[in-house]
This record gives sequence, C-alpha cells and structure tokens, in this order.
Amino acid sequence: MRGRGHVGSSTPRREDQRLVRGQGAFIGNVDASNQLWMRVVRSTVAHATIESVDVRDAERMPGVALVLTGEDLLPFGKIPLRSVGYQRMFPDIEDYGHPVLAANNVLYVGQPVVAVFADDPYRAEDAAEKVLVEYAECPPVLDPVEAAESAVLLHPLGNVPATFVKEYGDVERVFEEAPHIFRSEFRIGRQSGVPMEMRGCLVQPVRGHDELEFWGVVHAHNSRRVLAAVLQMPLSSIHMRPTDFGGNFGVRGGVFPEYVAAAVAARRLRRPVKWLEDRLEHMVSISHAREQVHRIEGAFDAEGRLLGLRDEIWHNHGAYMRQSEPLISDITAGMVAGPYRVPAYSATVHAVMTNKTPLSAYRAPGRFEVTFARERLLDVAAQELGVDPIDMRVLNVLTKTDLPWEPGLDIVFEGFRFDSGDVRNHVEKALAAADFEAWRTEAAELRAAGRLVGTGMGVLMDKAGLGLYETSVVDVDPSGRVRVLTGASSVGQGIETVLSQIVADELCNNPEEIDVLHGDTDQIHDGVGSWSSRSTVLAGGAARDAAQGVIKKALRVGASLLNVRVEELRFDAGRVITVAEPVRSLGLPEIARLWDAPTARRAGDEPGLSVSGVYRDEHMNYPYGITCVQLEIDATTGGHEIRHLFTSAEAGRVINPMTTRGQIIGAAIQGVGGALFEEFQYDAAGQPLTTSFMDYLLPDAPGSPEVDVFVTEDAPTPDNPFGAKGMGEVGLIAMGAAVAGAIDDALGNGVRVTQVPVHPEDIYDLAATARGRGLTDRRSQERDPM
Amino acid sequence: MRGRGHVGSSTPRREDQRLVRGQGAFIGNVDASNQLWMRVVRSTVAHATIESVDVRDAERMPGVALVLTGEDLLPFGKIPLRSVGYQRMFPDIEDYGHPVLAANNVLYVGQPVVAVFADDPYRAEDAAEKVLVEYAECPPVLDPVEAAESAVLLHPLGNVPATFVKEYGDVERVFEEAPHIFRSEFRIGRQSGVPMEMRGCLVQPVRGHDELEFWGVVHAHNSRRVLAAVLQMPLSSIHMRPTDFGGNFGVRGGVFPEYVAAAVAARRLRRPVKWLEDRLEHMVSISHAREQVHRIEGAFDAEGRLLGLRDEIWHNHGAYMRQSEPLISDITAGMVAGPYRVPAYSATVHAVMTNKTPLSAYRAPGRFEVTFARERLLDVAAQELGVDPIDMRVLNVLTKTDLPWEPGLDIVFEGFRFDSGDVRNHVEKALAAADFEAWRTEAAELRAAGRLVGTGMGVLMDKAGLGLYETSVVDVDPSGRVRVLTGASSVGQGIETVLSQIVADELCNNPEEIDVLHGDTDQIHDGVGSWSSRSTVLAGGAARDAAQGVIKKALRVGASLLNVRVEELRFDAGRVITVAEPVRSLGLPEIARLWDAPTARRAGDEPGLSVSGVYRDEHMNYPYGITCVQLEIDATTGGHEIRHLFTSAEAGRVINPMTTRGQIIGAAIQGVGGALFEEFQYDAAGQPLTTSFMDYLLPDAPGSPEVDVFVTEDAPTPDNPFGAKGMGEVGLIAMGAAVAGAIDDALGNGVRVTQVPVHPEDIYDLAATARGRGLTDRRSQERDPM
Repeated sequence: MRGRGHVGSSTPRREDQRLVRGQGAFIGNVDASNQLWMRVVRSTVAHATIESVDVRDAERMPGVALVLTGEDLLPFGKIPLRSVGYQRMFPDIEDYGHPVLAANNVLYVGQPVVAVFADDPYRAEDAAEKVLVEYAECPPVLDPVEAAESAVLLHPLGNVPATFVKEYGDVERVFEEAPHIFRSEFRIGRQSGVPMEMRGCLVQPVRGHDELEFWGVVHAHNSRRVLAAVLQMPLSSIHMRPTDFGGNFGVRGGVFPEYVAAAVAARRLRRPVKWLEDRLEHMVSISHAREQVHRIEGAFDAEGRLLGLRDEIWHNHGAYMRQSEPLISDITAGMVAGPYRVPAYSATVHAVMTNKTPLSAYRAPGRFEVTFARERLLDVAAQELGVDPIDMRVLNVLTKTDLPWEPGLDIVFEGFRFDSGDVRNHVEKALAAADFEAWRTEAAELRAAGRLVGTGMGVLMDKAGLGLYETSVVDVDPSGRVRVLTGASSVGQGIETVLSQIVADELCNNPEEIDVLHGDTDQIHDGVGSWSSRSTVLAGGAARDAAQGVIKKALRVGASLLNVRVEELRFDAGRVITVAEPVRSLGLPEIARLWDAPTARRAGDEPGLSVSGVYRDEHMNYPYGITCVQLEIDATTGGHEIRHLFTSAEAGRVINPMTTRGQIIGAAIQGVGGALFEEFQYDAAGQPLTTSFMDYLLPDAPGSPEVDVFVTEDAPTPDNPFGAKGMGEVGLIAMGAAVAGAIDDALGNGVRVTQVPVHPEDIYDLAATARGRGLTDRRSQERDPM
Repeated sequence: MRGRGHVGSSTPRREDQRLVRGQGAFIGNVDASNQLWMRVVRSTVAHATIESVDVRDAERMPGVALVLTGEDLLPFGKIPLRSVGYQRMFPDIEDYGHPVLAANNVLYVGQPVVAVFADDPYRAEDAAEKVLVEYAECPPVLDPVEAAESAVLLHPLGNVPATFVKEYGDVERVFEEAPHIFRSEFRIGRQSGVPMEMRGCLVQPVRGHDELEFWGVVHAHNSRRVLAAVLQMPLSSIHMRPTDFGGNFGVRGGVFPEYVAAAVAARRLRRPVKWLEDRLEHMVSISHAREQVHRIEGAFDAEGRLLGLRDEIWHNHGAYMRQSEPLISDITAGMVAGPYRVPAYSATVHAVMTNKTPLSAYRAPGRFEVTFARERLLDVAAQELGVDPIDMRVLNVLTKTDLPWEPGLDIVFEGFRFDSGDVRNHVEKALAAADFEAWRTEAAELRAAGRLVGTGMGVLMDKAGLGLYETSVVDVDPSGRVRVLTGASSVGQGIETVLSQIVADELCNNPEEIDVLHGDTDQIHDGVGSWSSRSTVLAGGAARDAAQGVIKKALRVGASLLNVRVEELRFDAGRVITVAEPVRSLGLPEIARLWDAPTARRAGDEPGLSVSGVYRDEHMNYPYGITCVQLEIDATTGGHEIRHLFTSAEAGRVINPMTTRGQIIGAAIQGVGGALFEEFQYDAAGQPLTTSFMDYLLPDAPGSPEVDVFVTEDAPTPDNPFGAKGMGEVGLIAMGAAVAGAIDDALGNGVRVTQVPVHPEDIYDLAATARGRGLTDRRSQERDPM
C-alpha cells in the first residue's frame, strides 16, 4: 500500500522474510577466512586468589597460535562503565569494573582466566583443557544482605560500591503517625534473558592498518565507544559490522571480556578471531539479573489509603560491575511507588558485590523487582485491613486529577514527571475487559469444589525511551529503493518494521520498498542502541526527522531542477509538485537521479537524496497497565496451570498493533518464566547449580498459556511526536506479583508467597503448609464448635 | 616533523611500511569463508558465431555450483561506457560495449564465453575444460586501416563506431602553399600496463539483503556506478571494499566482464565468489593499448618553421569498447600538435573495431602515440631540410610570448588552453642540464670509431588533472589520530604519502600521524578515482579542502567551548588560540573529544571533527618536457644498450620530490619497454603470439638504464591551489620518439624507424639495411669518386 496510514496498521514484519529463509547473518554464520577460534578457560571456584597459571602445555598443543593470560592483559585494565553520571556520584565505581582476564584473583565461577587461540574450535577447546590454574580458595560471599556486612572483602574498596537513597515527604513522621503499618521481606531470584543465540564475536584486523572490524556485538555504536576505550584505540579505527541477533533482552548488550580478549589477539596476530560460547559458559557468564532483597513497609489509613512507603533493598550485582550497572540500582530506588499516589517515600538500595556472576539489565530491570515487592505489600495490607485488593489499587493509583505527578524523585538523572494518562481509568477499563470479577467468581466456585484455583493481579508502571538521542539516515536511491539506516539495534523487537512504517508514511511509499539496516558504523557514523524500550520513540523519531529532511531537500533541489522557487512547490504522494499551473512534478527517485554529483557540485551541494536525522528525547515516558492471572495448583506434585492470563498497557499511540501485541505476549511469557520457573541457583560454595536447561527451567511454547492483551491509546505522551510509549517490557513487570497473588488466593489459609520464582517444590511446600493450616483450622473449629 | 613544510619535501612513502611487511591487502590475500571460485572459458578463435554451448559435463563435475553462459547473462546486456559526453556525440556508441559473456558470436581470442563456479579453483578449472563450445569461424579483421574498409562487419553498425575530426586554421591552403611538405606513415604497436598483480575480485552477498560487497576493483566509486548500472542494482546496495593494487597504469581500472559474471553468481547463489586470472588469461583479456596508424604530414618553411600539421589516424580499439574508450581517440585527435606553435591543424581519428583484445587507457594514452608520430615527422623534416633537429624544436615550441595559447581545440570536452610556462625555455634548460651536446659529440666520436651509437630526443606535452571532481574526508580522532579518506585510488602512485603531506601542512601535524584510506564506499560516499595524472591535484585539492573545513569547524566549535566569538580565535600549530590575553587554547584532538555527541546535539551540530571536502578542477593542466636517449646498437645480434637516458618535466609545483622522481623513472622505464620491447602480436588468424613473458618482453630492473630526471618548477599552473601539474605519465610520453631518433642516428644512412616497439629483430634488419646502404654508398663513392 502506497501513501500514508502505515503508522497504526499491522504491517507484516520486515525482518521475517530474511530470518525464515535462513538468510539471517547470525554470528554463528559469519566466518572469516583463516580465522582462529578462541576458547576461554574460566574460573572453577567462586572466590580465590590465583596462585599460578601454567599455559606451557596448552601452547604446545597442535594448532595453537596464542595463549593469553590475565597478566598479558593487565595493560588493558578493566572494562569501563562509561556512565559519566555515576562516575560523578561515585568516583570509585570504575574500580568495580570487570577485568578482561583474571590476573590476581577470581570472584565467580565462570570468570575468564585464560584465552586460548587455535586454528579450529576443537583444538582450542583441547588446548584450553591443558591450562593449569592453581587457586587458593577464599570463603565465598553469596547473599547480598550478608555481603553488605561481611568482613570478607571482594574488592579493595569494599563490597558496597554505592548506596542509593531516594526520598520525599516526611517519611519518618508518616510512619510514626500512621494507623496501620505493614512490612515484609520479599526476595527476587536470579534470572536472565537466556536468548536462543548465545554470545559470540568475530574480530578481523583490517590488513595494513591498525583497525579492527567487529561482528556480533549488539549495540554497535555504544559498544564501539566502550571497545575503543578499553582497547585504547581511536574510535575511528573500529568498524562495527551488522549481524542479526537471536534474542537480546538486555543481557547481551554490553561489551564482554571475551570480546576484548578476542580483539587483543586479532590485533596482535593480525588474524581474524572467532568466538562462540557454549550453553554452559553462557549460563555462568552471560549477565544475570534481578536478584534483590526488599524489606518494604507501608503506612496506611483504615480505608487502605497509602500514606507512605519505605523500602530497604539489597541489589546483588555479583562479582563485578557491568555496563548497565549501576543504573538498575538507581531505577530500583526510584520506582518502588510505581503508579501510586504515595505522599511520603523513601527507598534505599545497597548495591552489593558477591561471588556470583555479574548482573546487568534484563527486560524491565528494577521494575519487575519493585513491582513484586510493592504489589505483594499491597496484597498483605488489603488482607490485613480486610479491603478488597482491587479496591485498594483503585483507591491509590494516580488519576487525571493528580497530574502532573512530580513528587520530587530523580530516575536515571531526570526528574520523574508523570504527565499524561489516568491509571485508575485504565485499571478499571482493563479489569472490565478481562472480566476479572468473573474470574474471581469462577475461582471461588472451583475452590468450593475442592480445586486450588486462585486469581491475582498487579498494577505496573514502566519507564521507557531512556537516553540521549538516536540517529538515522534515509537514502532515496535513483532506482526508487529507500534505505533507512538506524543507530539503534534490531534485536527482535521489530524495529525494522516500525521504521519502515514511519518512513513510508513520511515519503508516501510502501514499507516493502524500504530496507532498514543497522549496526554498521561505517554506514551510519553515530548512534546509541536499543534498550529501555527506547527504539520506537528514539529511532523512530530520528528516522522521521531524516525522512522529513529528505522531503525538505527534495523541495529545495526540485525547485532548482524545475527552475521555480521553493515556495512554489508542495510535496504530495511522493512527488514535489508545482502549486501553480501548468502542473509539473518530480518523484523522489527522479530527483535523486537528476541531482547527480556534477549537478550537485555545481550548486555547492551534496549529490542525491541521503539525509541524516537525529532525535533527542527530553523525557522518559511512563507506560502503565495491569496484569491478572488465574491459576490452578496441583498440591500433590507442586504443578500449576495458568488458566487465564491478561495483561494491559496504555501505549499512548500504537505504531504497529501486531508487533506491539507480539512484544507484550513475549514479555508476558518471560514474566511467567520469572514468576514460576527461571532461577540461577548456587550451592553454599558458590558453585552454580543451574548450568543447563535441565536445571534452569524455561517456559516453552506448547506449555505456555494464551495471553489476553489489552492496549489503550487514551493518553498519547506529549513528549514525542508519535505520542508513543515504549511497549517492549510492560508485559512482564507485574507478572511476579500477579502469579504470587494467584497462588496465595488458590491456597488460602494465610499462605503468602514472598519470593519469585515460585518453583514447583515451593508450591508443593506452600500447599503442604496451607493444608496443614487448614487442618489446624478445621481441628480448632471441630474442638471449639460455635 | 610537526608544523608546515611537508609539501615540497621528500616525505617517506606512507604506503611502503604496510607493503614491505606483507600487510598489503591484495586481492589474492582477500578470501571469504565458503567462497566459490570462478573460472572463465574463453574464446579460442578470433571471430566466429557460436553454434552451440554444451555445459552439461561441466555441471556434473564435482564441486561445481553453477555454470553461466552468455544466454544466461543476456538480460544484463553490455557493460555501459558511461561517458555521457560521447553518448551525446555518438548515440550508438553503447552498441559497441562489451557483453558480459558471449552469447551469439565471439570477436577476439580470450573473450569470456562461459563462467564456471566451483568450490575450489582447481575443480573450477577442471570443470571449465569440460565446457564444449562449437564455433563457426569467420574471417578475422586485424589491421585497423583494413578494418575501416572491410566488408566483414564485426558489429551490426559497422567497424567504425566514431570518427573524430579536430581542426583549426586554413589547413588546406597552408598545405597548398607551403614550400615544404613532408609526410610519413608511423605505427605504434599494441602494448599494455602488464601489472605485477593480475586482475581478480571477490564478490560477497550481504546476508539477508540484496546487496553486494566488492573487493579488488581499482576505482571504487567509478566502478560502483558502472556495476550498479550493469547489474541493475541501486547504487546504495553495492559496497566497494578497499584492496591494495600491484600495479594499475590505467589498464586495470575498468569494470571487466569477469567482475559482472562473478557478481551475478554471488547474487544468485548467495555465496561469495572469488576470481583470480592467470597470466595467460591476463595477456589476452586485460585491456590492451596504443595500437595506432598515423599518416602524418607537416608543412614547413625553409627554416623549418611548422606551418601546418595534418594527421589521419586509425586507432585500433579491438573487439569492443571499454570504459575509457573512446576518450583515447579524442585525446589523440586533439594532441598531435603537442607543445608546438602550429598555425593550422587537422587530425582525423578513425576509431576502428578489429578482432583483437579491446583497448583501453594505458599510462599517457594517446600522448605516447601522437608524440612518436609528430616527433618522428619533425626528425624527418629536419633531416630533409638540413636543419638541426634541436634547433627545429626550439624554433617551434611555445614560448611565454605565445601565451595564452588557445588555438581552438577541444580535448575531452574542454577547450585546450595552454596558459602557463615557456616550453622553449624549459627545453633549453633541460638540454643544458643533460649536456645533450656532449652526448652528440660523444656519439659522433664513437661512430667514427666504428660503433653504432646515436642520440635522439623528443619534446612532449601531457594533459593532467582530468575530470569532474574528487572528494575527501578528514577526521581528527580524540586520540590525535587523523584519518584522511580519499575518493581517489591508491594504485602505487604514492597518493597516500602526498595526501598525508598536504593535510599535515594544513593541520600542522606530522604526516606519520595521518592515515590515508581509500576504496571503501561506505566510509566515503562519493568519489571518482585515479587516472590521467589527476590524483595529486584533485584528491589533493579535496583533502586540503576537508582539512581547511576541519580548521573552520575547530574555530567555530572552539569558540563555543571557550565561550568566545570566532573572531577572537586564531588557528596556529594545530591549536585554536584566543587572540587576546589571557591566552587559552584547545588542540584539535581535544576539541574532537569535547565536541562529543551530547554536546554537539545540544548545539544542533554534528559531533567530532570529521569534515568532508570536494575539489573541482575547472581545467586540465599541461605538463611538458623533453626526453633524450643515447644508445648503442649491436648489429650482429640486434641488441641495444641505452647509454644515457634523460627526461625532464615542468611540474609547476612538486609536492614530494622523491615520489615525483619515482613516478618519472617508473614511467621512463615503461617507455623503454614501449619503445624497445613490449608488443602484443597476433598471427594472421588473430591468434595471440605473446601470451607469456617468454614472448611479451618486459624491461627488468637489472637491465634498465639509469634515468636522469630533471624537474623544473618554473610555471605553477594557475588552475589549482598547489600550482601542481600531474607527473604520473610524463616520463614515457616521448620515449618512443627519442629511442627511434637515437636508432636512426646510430645507424645513419637514411634509416628511419617508423614503428615502435623496435624489437631486436627489427634492429637487426634496420642495421642490415643501413649496412647495405652504406656499402652501396661506399660503392657508388668508389665508382664515382669526386
């Protein structure tokens, strides 16, 4: 379809043709002639000093070209965090950065210690097994609350690199005077994105020049800056090359030690180096996420009105700080209140180091965690006060009359300002759409029939559109083909589709005539990347800016070609057209052809119709919604079945209903994983117990419930030209809370889920507790009949 | 050395470090994983219709992925000439273009007929041998004069696609009235650049997109335009990648059929395709050059003053028109008069097609040929008129008082305007520098002693700096590294060195801190290429423009950073500095660092210090000089030894004396090859006789004479900011003429060399003739004593 109207329609995904035809350029498909393969020797212990590293046998193995140790890489120091803001607040934060290879000590099982380079992957692996590392073990520190107090220091500057305190209102007084105070401890377990495609990279030196080409790095522009810094190379000497990504979810987005080791070897040997990790390595060295302990308390009046909220949080960063850190501690500290009218607020986050795999961002970092803690607290309060949990939410969420809601909180260096929407209205609409009352009735009936069925819900707020700016180039070829280059990353979220819709609407052509490309820093020189549900807003804004620039140039150049003044032309249906009779016009491809180099040079202009665009978002936007779950428990096995799953979001403006829905469903199922399945577990020695999919459970497609998605477009954000709010993460934010509430409801008897994920064995135990209490209750009833 | 003064000094070549360390990225070193190899089946006959092509056996050979025939490639038509000017003058010229693979007929031995693609080069070659092509042979047409009249038509529109006539003055009348007219026929043989590295390419499809990456193509930007046209792909979907080149000399600069065939296969199979030709293929299918027949006549007064010049020329283009054609016919028609004051002029060039390998540009195309014919004619006239050949040149060359010399000739679409210099003055200085009189005396003495020693000379004029524009990007990295990207090609001429000097002078830094890169169309989006001694002037002008743009931006941005007005800043020694006290300053790298993306975005500006430049040369420049040779002949073997070789040039301004000298010496030795060794010969059936270095003789380093180079900088051209004139070709232009004159002089007895190259067997025959005549003379003297 030509012309406008693509934005808002379910344009088929532009990405899929390529991917389903096996034409994806995943890092596993990208090879260079004469490449070496890297294999990483990893720490087998959680906490130790390295006594010795003996690589002599490895070096003698056939096909081995180089063995790098931590000692060799000392000149490269640590991988920088590059978060200027935090360096200002915590000048020592870089001290907690990740070394490329361990030189003196190791802080987690899986930490890279030695890198072996050989001419095939099997020889590299065989040689890696010949590396002998002797460790002097130290006691591991694993629990974040204990680590904060521990005398065992993992880093010279201590185990708590930063403490974040965010507060407003007179919290002390509110808690002194409140009629009701409820408190509880909640824990969120370690989880991660666990993408289908694991990490890998190919680093190829540019022959004859001290330059490198990188394939396989998720956020090309941002990673280039980090790589240039750690490799001590000029930015211009690093060329990022595009690959597809089989999943990201935040966890693959950083610059990992392995990339740096591969680059050092490629540069030194002047040979391409390829690295692909296996699943075991992935499970212990991809960034983990989530692990937090909340000691949360709420002050309420008798009707359940929230008067104040206080939370003390320990965020387990693991052994080192990775790039997205310590942003997540900051987000956590700022977002405990969520979309609620909380008059007094205090949140303290202890960013704590332990002997576990480093943490980083994973879809909705901080939000999943705080939402679990807050919504659980509200459920507790509702139960204790005898208020309906729905009524309690409706009473407390922000409404139009509260706006703009600007309580005095900073989130990621900007003031939190909730300036559009009506959470109460959305929650009420959503509950009606879900027919939540009918679920509750149904569950009560089934419970009366002896089945363990319960309903739960959680209200959520996300933050989206974080950060700086994004770039784009729109190039109209004389052939009519339009190429859109984006500084963002195509990580499965459908950004190619969304950008093709946005540009098609501007240029009045067909999204199928538009190719969207990303990840090549030679083709687009600057950019940021894709995270924080920012791409539609920021990359979309940049593409729109570039497309509008194309039209502007077409009018200017068209005026010169048609020998009229710019004011005498208009742009319509992909052509510049004279306003007056006789009507003459030029199509965009025609203009691109006619404005060739000699013609453009004569006019002192650039040839063609290739224009760059930038979009800068001044404020984050705050999508909100509600997630409802009805599930049934099998007390004899600890099994469960989600009978209903409903999740809603206020999107402001939907660019593509199909891909929005897809993102929400995908997130919801990941949320189910986070609520009921996925956890990286460790034994007391710090040994990971979940290093395969036999141990780390993931929801699968056939076993996943239908997700009922409800999207409103009632409150377009005034902060961006589309009015769009980020929809990439909303689907999972309240899933932990909703599932927990449903389990409580199903089991009754005052049973309370206080941590996620709730594994089958946990459910079994909870069911046993509930049964025990039920028997006790019955017995006491029997003993003491009315 | 920091600061200015690099321009004009012998900065060491920036290219050599890379090349002598084996870090050159020659196409032979560039491989892609999983690549196929192409082998081309070539015509074994000079002229035939194709009866049948049977590829069934080839397709069944192991490892064969695809066999392409001319039939398969018919949709791609012919390789376009892309010379808009000529299409205007000769609308049918594209009809003479080269088909990718022959479908209906073949027109020369070596013409590509079938392309076989297999998984290794040996299997491809084996399979190619199984291709069965049946030909119905036609009579071959080989001689250009005969071809022009032949009833055997090679092309539907005839054997003469174009005739160029250039004239001024009343030539008819001059020749009617002149006291002396001398005429002769001269022939220039087929020669070519014969680079050390032969042609090859690697074409890699971009996974998931209908885009191609090309390695191994000499002029990235220009070839991209041709490839996009013939492949019917958008320009933006073709990405040229940089390689080094082991010689070009013009002959490797086009888009060859093989590149297109490889691209078609890569695109169809979605696999990389590599092609490397062998020397035999190279000898029959690289562009040949030079072959011309001149019937030239001059009108003189009794003192040897040139009154008029008339030349009829047959230029043997071979079987098809290649990209640089028919430019060379045009140049030939315009430059017969060279640097001489010729009042009346007429040159007619018949561009003729024959059953030989297609011709194209080879170092100083047209100029070597016309200079041979003209200087030979002058030698004839001088001898006949009894005027000293030196005096005749001095009498006729242009002097300061003749300027501007603008006789009314067009050369390559622009009016010939000789506007700076003094050829007579230069010739006199050069002859003095060579001590040419002493050579003549020496030769006479040696002849008197019975040795066959002679001296010869030729005055030359080149044209340089042809064409359009050139581009550059200068990028200052925060690390201090400066990257210069050029749209020109680094083909051995030392352009990387020259650009680093020019930019170093502008930015006041060290050429060694500057990296010059070329050939990647993603890194520099537009450009032209390197030919016609244009690079120093055009690419140099563009790099200077970009560097000045960097300074301008640095001042603008520096003003913002230092919070002063631009007028309050000056640029000195690589820094922007406040004019007033207190003196504050910022270095360029510092500015690049501070002007980071967020800062620049706030100012609505581009981050960093990366600025593009363009240079457009309005006029060609016309270097001139003289070449002198003294050689000795061994009449018993036909051998020869060059005893003295001197060549001079007026350079306007020398950017790098060492590389200029290197270029002149290299050209001079290639000129020696053209004068005495190199010729592609054919038998009467059109079968090439010179398909290896056993047959096609090349001068070698140990056997080559010392070259005495004399460069003046008396007349900087006003046409470009450096005043520089192109020095890439001057060294060989008059070599044929000078060598021929020296042979005449050595042998005496009225022997006249009328064609080059003069092979040893020719010299043997000429010596025999001379001896014969000498005996006759002696006998007649004996018979008829005074």
